[in-house]
Amino acid sequence: MFKPLLSLTGGLIATMAISIAQAKPLPQEDLSVAEVLRDRALESSDAYSIVESLTVEVGPRRTGTEGDRRAVAWAQQKMKDLGFDRVYTEQIDVPRWVRGHAHAEVVSPYPQPLVVSSLGYSVATPEGGLTAEIVEFADVEALLKATPKQIKGKIAFINKRMERARTGEGYGPAVQGRSRGMRAASEKGAAALLLRSVGTDSDRFAHTGMMSIDDIENPIPALALSAPDANLLEVMLKRGTPVEVKLNVDNERLADGPSFNVIGEITGREKPEEAMIIGAHLDSWDEATGALDDGAGVAIVMETARLIAELPDRPRRTLRVVLFGAEEIGLVGAKQYVDAHRHELDNIIAVSESDFGAGKIWRFDTRLPESKFDIADQMMQLLAPLGIERGNNESYGGPDSSIFVAQGVPAFGLYQDGTDYFDYHHTPNDTLDKIDPENLRQNVAAWVVMSFLATEMEGDLGRVPTKSE
Amino acid sequence: MFKPLLSLTGGLIATMAISIAQAKPLPQEDLSVAEVLRDRALESSDAYSIVESLTVEVGPRRTGTEGDRRAVAWAQQKMKDLGFDRVYTEQIDVPRWVRGHAHAEVVSPYPQPLVVSSLGYSVATPEGGLTAEIVEFADVEALLKATPKQIKGKIAFINKRMERARTGEGYGPAVQGRSRGMRAASEKGAAALLLRSVGTDSDRFAHTGMMSIDDIENPIPALALSAPDANLLEVMLKRGTPVEVKLNVDNERLADGPSFNVIGEITGREKPEEAMIIGAHLDSWDEATGALDDGAGVAIVMETARLIAELPDRPRRTLRVVLFGAEEIGLVGAKQYVDAHRHELDNIIAVSESDFGAGKIWRFDTRLPESKFDIADQMMQLLAPLGIERGNNESYGGPDSSIFVAQGVPAFGLYQDGTDYFDYHHTPNDTLDKIDPENLRQNVAAWVVMSFLATEMEGDLGRVPTKSE
Repeated sequence: MFKPLLSLTGGLIATMAISIAQAKPLPQEDLSVAEVLRDRALESSDAYSIVESLTVEVGPRRTGTEGDRRAVAWAQQKMKDLGFDRVYTEQIDVPRWVRGHAHAEVVSPYPQPLVVSSLGYSVATPEGGLTAEIVEFADVEALLKATPKQIKGKIAFINKRMERARTGEGYGPAVQGRSRGMRAASEKGAAALLLRSVGTDSDRFAHTGMMSIDDIENPIPALALSAPDANLLEVMLKRGTPVEVKLNVDNERLADGPSFNVIGEITGREKPEEAMIIGAHLDSWDEATGALDDGAGVAIVMETARLIAELPDRPRRTLRVVLFGAEEIGLVGAKQYVDAHRHELDNIIAVSESDFGAGKIWRFDTRLPESKFDIADQMMQLLAPLGIERGNNESYGGPDSSIFVAQGVPAFGLYQDGTDYFDYHHTPNDTLDKIDPENLRQNVAAWVVMSFLATEMEGDLGRVPTKSE
Repeated sequence: MFKPLLSLTGGLIATMAISIAQAKPLPQEDLSVAEVLRDRALESSDAYSIVESLTVEVGPRRTGTEGDRRAVAWAQQKMKDLGFDRVYTEQIDVPRWVRGHAHAEVVSPYPQPLVVSSLGYSVATPEGGLTAEIVEFADVEALLKATPKQIKGKIAFINKRMERARTGEGYGPAVQGRSRGMRAASEKGAAALLLRSVGTDSDRFAHTGMMSIDDIENPIPALALSAPDANLLEVMLKRGTPVEVKLNVDNERLADGPSFNVIGEITGREKPEEAMIIGAHLDSWDEATGALDDGAGVAIVMETARLIAELPDRPRRTLRVVLFGAEEIGLVGAKQYVDAHRHELDNIIAVSESDFGAGKIWRFDTRLPESKFDIADQMMQLLAPLGIERGNNESYGGPDSSIFVAQGVPAFGLYQDGTDYFDYHHTPNDTLDKIDPENLRQNVAAWVVMSFLATEMEGDLGRVPTKSE
C-alpha cells in the first residue's frame, strides 16, 4: 500500500497530503493493550537471560569468524525457542580480517610497554616490527596540516580526548581520528598511526573500531592506545626529548566470506507482507563478549517480539526482528539487506534499532511525516511514565536503520542513557556485568509499546524523503 | 638511648614504667612548626610530580628486572635532587621470576578466550599447554575439603568474591585463595589453579600477586581470572555441562639476584644516630606502572622529607626515608633491612609506611606504649583539621613496617581511604590517572606533621613488645 507514495516524484508535499488524509489516531483499545504489554515487560521481561546466553554460550563474534557462525546458529535457535512464527537467514558477503598480535613499547628515552589494539583492517608491521619517533597531533585536522618533513617516516600520534555525554555526542568529533587518521597519516608518508582511544574511560583498555580504508594506496599499521598510555606518551613528550616507539603488529586481510543476517518474524494477522523492522546487530568486536555492543540490543528486540507473540492475537502487521551481520565493519548486513529488498522497502512501515548499550531509555525520537506526529504523541502517553521525554524528529533509527532511513523509511529512536557507554565500547571490558537487568526491563517496556502500536495501527506512517531526494 | 629498654627481659611492665618517666608532651613551639609544615604541604606540596616522574620515566619495576634497576637509579637521583643530606643503597638478595605468556580459553562446551594473569612464582604448563575440566570451590577451605576424586587431574577454580571496604578489610579473607590456593590444589593432585581475582572491580583485568610457595613439592600453574571471566565460568558451570579449559603458560624461575633498598636521610641535628623511618616500597608488579602500589607512597614520603629539609634547622633526630625493595614478593627488602640492622634497631624511634594507594587519610592509628598516648593526642590536634580521626593502637605501620614492629619498634599508621584501592591493585590498570593530586597533598600534610614531631620530640617512644616476647 505504500507503493503509490514511493512512486510519486513530487516529494514532500504530495507525500504529506496523502499522509494527512490517511492519519488515524490509535484507538484506545490498542493503547490499552500496549499498556498491558508495557507493564508486563516492566514486571517480568527477561532480556537479561538472552544476553547472558549470547555472551556466555557464544562470546566474541566478529564477522566472518567461527564465533560469528556460532552466533548465527544461536540466534536462529533462540528465536525458535522464544516462539517466533518464522526464522530464517539471508546470506551476506563480509570482509574478513584476522587480528594477530599487537605489541607497542617505548624504546627511548624511557622504555616501557604500551597497551594497544589494532584498529579494524590495520595492516601488519614489517616482520620484526618498526621503530620510529612519534609526533603528536591534537586531532586529524592538525595531522592534515602537517608538512611531510614533520611526519615522514615517523609515527603519527593523534591525541584527541572524547567528551562524555548522555547522548554520546562526543563520539562524532572523536571518531574522526579513527575513521580518517590512518589515511591522513599514510598520505603524509608516516610509518604508522597511534590513536588515543575513542572512549571516555581512564582504564587501561584500548578501544578498537573500524577505519575507512577505501582506496588508500599505502595503508600503514594503525593502533589505538589506552587512555593511560596516551597520557604517558603525552607527558613523555612534554619532557622535550624525542620519544621512540617500537610497534610489532601481525594482522591479515583475507578474501571476503559469507555471514548472515538472522531474521525472525511474528507474522501479521491482516497484512503479513507489511512489517515493522526492529533491529540490532549480531556481530561484535573480538576482544570482548559484546554484551553492550550489541548483545543488549539483540536481547531487547528479541524479548520485545516474544512478549508480543504471547498476545492472544498477532498484530495487524508483521513484526520483523532483524539481527544484522557485519555492522561493526561498515553496516554491511544492513546495506545488503536494503539492496536485496529494494523492491519491497515500501512494505516496511518503520524501522528502529537498539545499538547503544543497556542504559535506561530517556528520549523518544522519530523520523515521521509531520502529519503523523499525533501517533508519536499517543505513543508518548505510554512512554512518559517510563521516564521518557519526547525528543526530535531527526532520528536515524540507529546505525543499521540509517540505511533504510536513507530510502525514506520512517524511523523511531528510543534513546538510551549513554553516559557510560563509551567507557566500554570496543574494549575487552564490554562484558555482561556492565548490564543492569532492571534497565533492560525498562528498555523492553518502551520497545514493546512502540513495536505493538506500529504493527497494530490501521493507517500507515507514510515516507520521509531524505533531503537529497 | 633505647638500649636499656631493649635489654630488659621483663617485658611490658618495666617498659611502661620507664616510658612514663620519660614522657614529655610536645612543646607548643614544635606544634607550631608542624602546623606551618602541614599548611605548606596542603598549599604547595607536589608529591604528584614525583609519582609522575617515577611512573613515566621508570614505569613497571618488578624486583630483579631491568625496570627495578632503573627505579633504584631514579630514586637515588630524585632524593639528591630533592635536597636529602645523605642518599645510599643497601643491597638485598631477591628471588627472580620471569613472566612469560599466560593464555586461557574455554574449549568446551562454549569455546571462548579468558583474561588471566599468572600469579607470582607460577610455574609454566607443559609445552603446548594443558586442558582439563574445571571444578569450582567457594574458597580455599572448600578446596581443602575436596576428595582427591573430585579434583585429581582437574583445574581447581576458587571463586571467592572480595568485599569492598574503606579499610580494605575484605582483602584478608579474599587473599587466602591466592596465598594458599595453589598449595592446596597441588596437594589434592589438581593440574592447575584458577582463582577469581582478589579485587573489588568488575573490569576485565586479572589481579596478579604473590603466592606462598615454600616447600611445595609439586607446584602447579596458578592464574588469576578477571572478575568478568570468573563470572563467565560460574554461569557456564550452572548450565550443568562439564567445562573444559585450556591453559598455556610460560614462566620461569631464575636464581636469586641483587636488588636494593634505597635510603635517603635528613640528618638529625642533635641525635643523628636516632631515626624515624618513613617507608614505601620501590618495586611494583610488572603489568602496570605501579602508581598506586606504591608510587604514591614513594612520592608521599619523599615529599614529606623534602618539606622538612626546607626548615631552617634539621629536626633533633634523623628522618630516614627507606624505599624498600622486593616488597611484592614477600617483604624481602624489609626483612633483610631488619636483619642487617638488628644491632641498632633500638635507634629507630618509630616506623611508618605509606602503601595503600593515594586516597585521603581518614584515620590515625598507632602502636605506642600507653604512656605515650599523649603524644599521639597532640599529633591529633594537628591531624583532625585534615579530616583525620583517631584510630586504634594496633597499627602494624604498613607491610614492610610490620617486620620492625615484630621487633618492638613503635609504629604510626596514617590510614588512607581504600574504597577503590582494590579496583586497581596488581592489575595493568594501576596507572597515574588514578591519583588525585589534591589527595596527595592531604597525605603529605599528615605525614609531615607526624614525621616532624617524632623526629623533633625530646623524649622517646619506648618499645612495644609483641605478644610473643
